[in-house]
Amino acid sequence: MKMTENALGRKVPLEVPGVGAFAPYAGPFATINALNPFSGAVHKVRTAQRGNKIAASIEEAVKKSGLENGMTISFHHHLRDGDAVMPAVLEVLQKMGFKDLTLAPSSIPDAHECIADYIKSGLISRLYTSGVRGRLGKLISSGEADIPVVIRSHGGRARAIEAGQISIDVAFLAAPACDKTGNMSGSSGPSACGSLGYAMTDARYAKHVVAVTDNLVEYPLAQNISIPQYEVDQVVVVDSLGDPNKIATGATRITRNPVDLRIAYNTFLLMKASGVVRPGYSFQMGSGGASLAVSIYLEEYMKNKNIVGAFGLGGITGHMSSMLEKGLFRTLFDVQSFDTAVTSSVASNPNHTEIDSSWYANPFNAGCLVNDLDCVILSALEVDVDFNVNVLVGNDGVLRGASGGHSDTAAGASLAIVVVPSFRGGICSIKDSVKSITTPGETVDAIVTERGILINPLRADLLESARKAKLPVVEIHDLKAKIEEMTGIPEPIAYDESKVAAVVEYRDGTLIDTIYRIK
Amino acid sequence: MKMTENALGRKVPLEVPGVGAFAPYAGPFATINALNPFSGAVHKVRTAQRGNKIAASIEEAVKKSGLENGMTISFHHHLRDGDAVMPAVLEVLQKMGFKDLTLAPSSIPDAHECIADYIKSGLISRLYTSGVRGRLGKLISSGEADIPVVIRSHGGRARAIEAGQISIDVAFLAAPACDKTGNMSGSSGPSACGSLGYAMTDARYAKHVVAVTDNLVEYPLAQNISIPQYEVDQVVVVDSLGDPNKIATGATRITRNPVDLRIAYNTFLLMKASGVVRPGYSFQMGSGGASLAVSIYLEEYMKNKNIVGAFGLGGITGHMSSMLEKGLFRTLFDVQSFDTAVTSSVASNPNHTEIDSSWYANPFNAGCLVNDLDCVILSALEVDVDFNVNVLVGNDGVLRGASGGHSDTAAGASLAIVVVPSFRGGICSIKDSVKSITTPGETVDAIVTERGILINPLRADLLESARKAKLPVVEIHDLKAKIEEMTGIPEPIAYDESKVAAVVEYRDGTLIDTIYRIK
Repeated sequence: MKMTENALGRKVPLEVPGVGAFAPYAGPFATINALNPFSGAVHKVRTAQRGNKIAASIEEAVKKSGLENGMTISFHHHLRDGDAVMPAVLEVLQKMGFKDLTLAPSSIPDAHECIADYIKSGLISRLYTSGVRGRLGKLISSGEADIPVVIRSHGGRARAIEAGQISIDVAFLAAPACDKTGNMSGSSGPSACGSLGYAMTDARYAKHVVAVTDNLVEYPLAQNISIPQYEVDQVVVVDSLGDPNKIATGATRITRNPVDLRIAYNTFLLMKASGVVRPGYSFQMGSGGASLAVSIYLEEYMKNKNIVGAFGLGGITGHMSSMLEKGLFRTLFDVQSFDTAVTSSVASNPNHTEIDSSWYANPFNAGCLVNDLDCVILSALEVDVDFNVNVLVGNDGVLRGASGGHSDTAAGASLAIVVVPSFRGGICSIKDSVKSITTPGETVDAIVTERGILINPLRADLLESARKAKLPVVEIHDLKAKIEEMTGIPEPIAYDESKVAAVVEYRDGTLIDTIYRIK
Repeated sequence: MKMTENALGRKVPLEVPGVGAFAPYAGPFATINALNPFSGAVHKVRTAQRGNKIAASIEEAVKKSGLENGMTISFHHHLRDGDAVMPAVLEVLQKMGFKDLTLAPSSIPDAHECIADYIKSGLISRLYTSGVRGRLGKLISSGEADIPVVIRSHGGRARAIEAGQISIDVAFLAAPACDKTGNMSGSSGPSACGSLGYAMTDARYAKHVVAVTDNLVEYPLAQNISIPQYEVDQVVVVDSLGDPNKIATGATRITRNPVDLRIAYNTFLLMKASGVVRPGYSFQMGSGGASLAVSIYLEEYMKNKNIVGAFGLGGITGHMSSMLEKGLFRTLFDVQSFDTAVTSSVASNPNHTEIDSSWYANPFNAGCLVNDLDCVILSALEVDVDFNVNVLVGNDGVLRGASGGHSDTAAGASLAIVVVPSFRGGICSIKDSVKSITTPGETVDAIVTERGILINPLRADLLESARKAKLPVVEIHDLKAKIEEMTGIPEPIAYDESKVAAVVEYRDGTLIDTIYRIK
């Protein structure tokens, strides 16, 4: 691949064979502020045949869909590790003898290790995703799975779909409630998962949409229609979409870890000192333990000060929907519900509004809500002294994370705080240079650890506020040195820089980094 | 104009100068059943500038919109005769010196006679609408207003917008509730009008959208968002959108007229005899006095028989929302709320779903709800012995009505009943040939008058059911002769067939008829 150096000094290809051309990253707002930066979307009104949309099986639906080798299929990840639809459909496609498909789901849950096998079998020849983990990550990082991988943020994926760079031929959409015409909702039924925000974008733009449901309701489904019937071509009834209790696995539990709690408290103090927690503010928190814990301190403070926020955004946790219920936020804009507690709020609280992923985070969308964020709390695998953040590659150099809304919200929010323990697994979290840049340091205002708050030199105002409030501000190089005194510095990962494992797209469509295979 | 004869024997132009080419009507389903009949829509994601969308005045909004002479502007008619937005905007455009605009509102309320003046002044040079009435109708029919006029059904307009035949440059959308980013709702505020179904389509496809509101709410508006912020470019605050109490003027009151009540009862009996009133059926009623009265009988019957319908559709009346409340229908799909009583139902009943006009009635839309109707009750100005219906031209030959959803629902419904008094103003309502065909007889199953039920010979099954139920079935020629014995036959209108006043588009985009100027 012909490589070029982008504005962050990272080498990125100008073209990914089998995928297409890319421009190098030029700064967080360089493309967005350019003239006519976005070609816009071509949205074709569906003119499906009338009559019965019910297909007898996934196989029959595939046959009717017109799917051919070389085409692009998509799925949503709202059921997270509980999802049984992606594996079931891929199994059918494999049995039917399909080859050379592009798999372009909104993300890939940890549980879906089967994808590794389908790459090896030749069923899947290109992968566009928010993240890869587990066995699949190892396969890609080792080069055993030799296919192009493009990693996009949630906003970047919406952008790519709307710009036609991801052209979905057939979307298979898990539908927790669905009627015979395809009206579907995420917020009722045995596999309810709340918002169907990512699926909404797929339904709007995919050439063919198959709803897969375990809960065919009497026609018409009327309440909380996430996706209207006119965007759906076929409906398949299966025994089960999976296990909604696994939606909340891991990432969304409130922590009892004292390190996380200290980080959360430091974060809360920084938010308070910055003045961002004021009436009418907007807020998003990530799904990590520490960022979830921030909301506990925040709730107490907002109650005491009678502060009501305008909206909570994003991946919505049970704690956020409880804050809505208590009147601490006037609205939730929900692109993805992080646990089952959120589902009833989506279903019945009229101020809990389901939004599609373009509205959430396509940076070129005139309503892009991440751009209206006052504050976001984000997690990290590692950070560097330039405040760049890596959420994709682990300390072993292997892909094990997801881009999610990280770079979208960091760029959009007035105050983007990254929370990270100062070291993990005996390795300092602060590096000279992160192994892979997911989010550019220019868009990160502060990094909060249990050993102090690191403030981006670009934010002199924030530094002053933090010092005035006597917060434990630490210079990033100082903390790095201090931690490394304890942990030492690990050997650098031996990458084979002649072999690209994956490219990382920034939210504007440019390439921000390349992830190489490990030797 | 070069004329051709269409499948109903009506002469229609192949091209309307200044507008474009048209195909002649070829039968109600000829185009729809053709291969690839619909090019589909190009829907561009709006990439408006971020930041403040509030414009200080309509004039400022117009300046920022990029509106130029020759362009197309649109409005919605949800506030009906209460609307003050269209006159206010046109006045500003006139003062600013604009010329040669295409006015393409969803319809034109009776009250907007000012349009006649703006045509004379040269502000408006082309008119695309569902109907014209009053002084405007006289002007067009007399030829005093010498501009191309294209009359479309509500479904036909949605189709034309989605196919790019109506390309809206700037939409000025009355917003009963709106926040600073453009999130808007029709169901709250001093000028609440319920559904914004027609406006939803304009917002999605117009190149530039100006929300005009008298009720700027705290950001974000969360409940019942009819149109999301990302489809709105500017927000203008005005003193008042008009008078929502005038929404219900005239057409939507329940009648006490004994002729209408007899017609309504005959209609109810026919519905019952046909077997259409069964569990899970779907129903739309027009806004005329008789069709509204049908629902009184229907409600009683459904209660007694424990019949619950699947959905009520369309222009929703207060009586329909009361039937939803009582559980007689499971759902209402509401493209337009016919009176203020409906507004609170839209706002708070989760089974009362706001739908856009394409979902409602674009015949090529895969979800087109009119195509799923079991029964519709429609009114008429006159009918003919071929069951063709005219809802546009009065007995004096002058334009005085609106196409609305008439031809859409008649074609879509399994049972389309037209209700009409056998004579009006001393003139028999049944003609040899209607002055103008709005809805082809092939799609009309029965005509119900106070003097008997006329059944389309194409519906031998319905005739048999009606006879079995001993309904007062009359042969259409017989009733016509009987009425004409009393009323006589009026002189035919003297049209100048060398001069076209307006063309009437069928829902599929073909021309079904031409309306000439009167001599």
